[in-house]
Amino acid sequence: MTEALADPRPRLAIVPGDPTGIGPELAARILTNPDMWRLARFLVVGDARVMAMGAQQAEVSLSLRSIANGEGAAAAIREAETAGEVPMIDLGNLDPSRFTLGQASAEVGGEVGATLAAAVELARAGIVDGVTFTPLNKQAMFRGGWQFPDEHKLFAHLLGFKGLFSEMNVLDGQWMTRVTSHVSLREAVEQITPARIRDALTLADTTMRRAGIAEPRIAVAALNPHAGEGGLFGREEIDIIAPTVREMAARGIRCDGPFPSDTVYLKAFEGHYDSVLAMYHDQGQIATKLRGFNRGVTITAGLPTVFTTPAHGTAYDIVGRGIADPGATESAVRLAARLAGKTSLDGPGTQATGLVDAQT
Amino acid sequence: MTEALADPRPRLAIVPGDPTGIGPELAARILTNPDMWRLARFLVVGDARVMAMGAQQAEVSLSLRSIANGEGAAAAIREAETAGEVPMIDLGNLDPSRFTLGQASAEVGGEVGATLAAAVELARAGIVDGVTFTPLNKQAMFRGGWQFPDEHKLFAHLLGFKGLFSEMNVLDGQWMTRVTSHVSLREAVEQITPARIRDALTLADTTMRRAGIAEPRIAVAALNPHAGEGGLFGREEIDIIAPTVREMAARGIRCDGPFPSDTVYLKAFEGHYDSVLAMYHDQGQIATKLRGFNRGVTITAGLPTVFTTPAHGTAYDIVGRGIADPGATESAVRLAARLAGKTSLDGPGTQATGLVDAQT
Repeated sequence: MTEALADPRPRLAIVPGDPTGIGPELAARILTNPDMWRLARFLVVGDARVMAMGAQQAEVSLSLRSIANGEGAAAAIREAETAGEVPMIDLGNLDPSRFTLGQASAEVGGEVGATLAAAVELARAGIVDGVTFTPLNKQAMFRGGWQFPDEHKLFAHLLGFKGLFSEMNVLDGQWMTRVTSHVSLREAVEQITPARIRDALTLADTTMRRAGIAEPRIAVAALNPHAGEGGLFGREEIDIIAPTVREMAARGIRCDGPFPSDTVYLKAFEGHYDSVLAMYHDQGQIATKLRGFNRGVTITAGLPTVFTTPAHGTAYDIVGRGIADPGATESAVRLAARLAGKTSLDGPGTQATGLVDAQT
Repeated sequence: MTEALADPRPRLAIVPGDPTGIGPELAARILTNPDMWRLARFLVVGDARVMAMGAQQAEVSLSLRSIANGEGAAAAIREAETAGEVPMIDLGNLDPSRFTLGQASAEVGGEVGATLAAAVELARAGIVDGVTFTPLNKQAMFRGGWQFPDEHKLFAHLLGFKGLFSEMNVLDGQWMTRVTSHVSLREAVEQITPARIRDALTLADTTMRRAGIAEPRIAVAALNPHAGEGGLFGREEIDIIAPTVREMAARGIRCDGPFPSDTVYLKAFEGHYDSVLAMYHDQGQIATKLRGFNRGVTITAGLPTVFTTPAHGTAYDIVGRGIADPGATESAVRLAARLAGKTSLDGPGTQATGLVDAQT
């Protein structure tokens, strides 16, 4: 592992997302930003014609070298890097002359899913330490045959992963997660159980530690208004949430609560916590979207492979105009580098934490 | 009504709130602000010693003239005004030497409740057109014998009002209201009915029109994440909310939705709506508290008497330091003047709308 000792940067797969949106432009901007290369090495996974289009949209010059997937890939990647070129697995599956910018397409969605699957395979093979992808069109992917409620469940499926995993949103240094997600509010109330709260706290704690936060401080939101007002507005705080928070705190997770959900996000954004655990989808989403969700990063926490992506979408209204803001994608790369650094073949402690700023 | 024709300003009762907090200081600042007098005339209801303390805290000079409540009150108020003094009903019920600043007291809370009751009586008698009060300590009032879940229910009780009324929060030009309030989330889900949504839309529309908004645009929030995602995450949007919104739109209320609750507040604050109707307490409260709840105004909508108050609390941490910000209380006075102007004895159309800015 001489190379690993010489170069502590994790290697990330960059997937240019749905090519009818701003994803290729963002990928091109990332790959031509020297700050990004100080944090990670990259392997592009996608269609070379899509990446050429992205470079043109971004008005940047990008030297890609197509390498063959399979046996000699690792050596070929190193050769490309030595030659100052960006290595790419060219899947040749998305011809820009066959789709229209700003128009969702099931056919394109199908190939985007195949591209993500190829990136997952490269991670499984140990060729990359993590995956950062630019915005997808989830409906197009669904219609294109990848029938998963979200990409997180797709990744778990591709990895054959049966354990605990969850979406997290990272914004302004806050790691937002939740106990329940894409179910009706009625069902969410039913799903508030000690087991689920324990799982969510464990996952949040583990993920933040993996990202280099030594003692993550987690604020737990209440379910009911005024945190139940002493049992007057519901008993879940008294019967379920508070005892579970105490139990997990005794087990060494620095968690606190439950707090009324209409002030807990204020406290967190003021810096009193690193993370808020919501009880249901809209609690966290109302807060983070008002705060500036689009600047944030979405990660899939708990899987053996690191996945990060900007929280914003394909931005069809500005596609091809060369004005896509790469800020959130840069944050996604920083976060993937932090998370992947801990588990890469290079071993712990070698990731370039000094280069990671607080923007994520 | 010669005087009324000569002076279009509504007369507002100013109640200095809980005197252990910043309320008296705020009241003194309001009463010595010429901008406030351009919008309304004031009658202070409280204890003269508390107001003297407030003036000292605010470092302002306040000329109060105590007038006797009862038969000759209206004439005495006009006499005080002619003499350039602020008329006051001195209840003599709160001696500052008998309470400690920054410390809640049941005894004080009891007298604060009595003070509010006196202001309500003055409104019932037609002496004032509305009531603006500075922050209360609700727990102190509760312990002092006024056992109501909130001041809105207290006011309705004092007025003997049996009809439809509700709290509304006004912030940055947005009128926030909700279908359900201080109940468990489980109960809130059960309470989402066409009747309640109709009532809430009607009340919001009526109140905003009364405040001078010609055609209030109301966005209705969904109950479930992603507005139910076409029925996948709950059917309340399809079965209850959407049909009721259509029905009320057909009846002439400019309402729209249901919209996913994690983006509807963004749309509203961008100016696409005047109001958001939440389905439950924390939806609206998470959004408005993050936006800056403390700058906002709380009103009791639907009662025959206008009540407004700053949304923030007694601020025990800064009481007596002379640094209390009167911004939200000024907004509360502006809003009371707008709402009271329409229904005062002076008749419609005479309120000084030109002086009302958009800060509320």
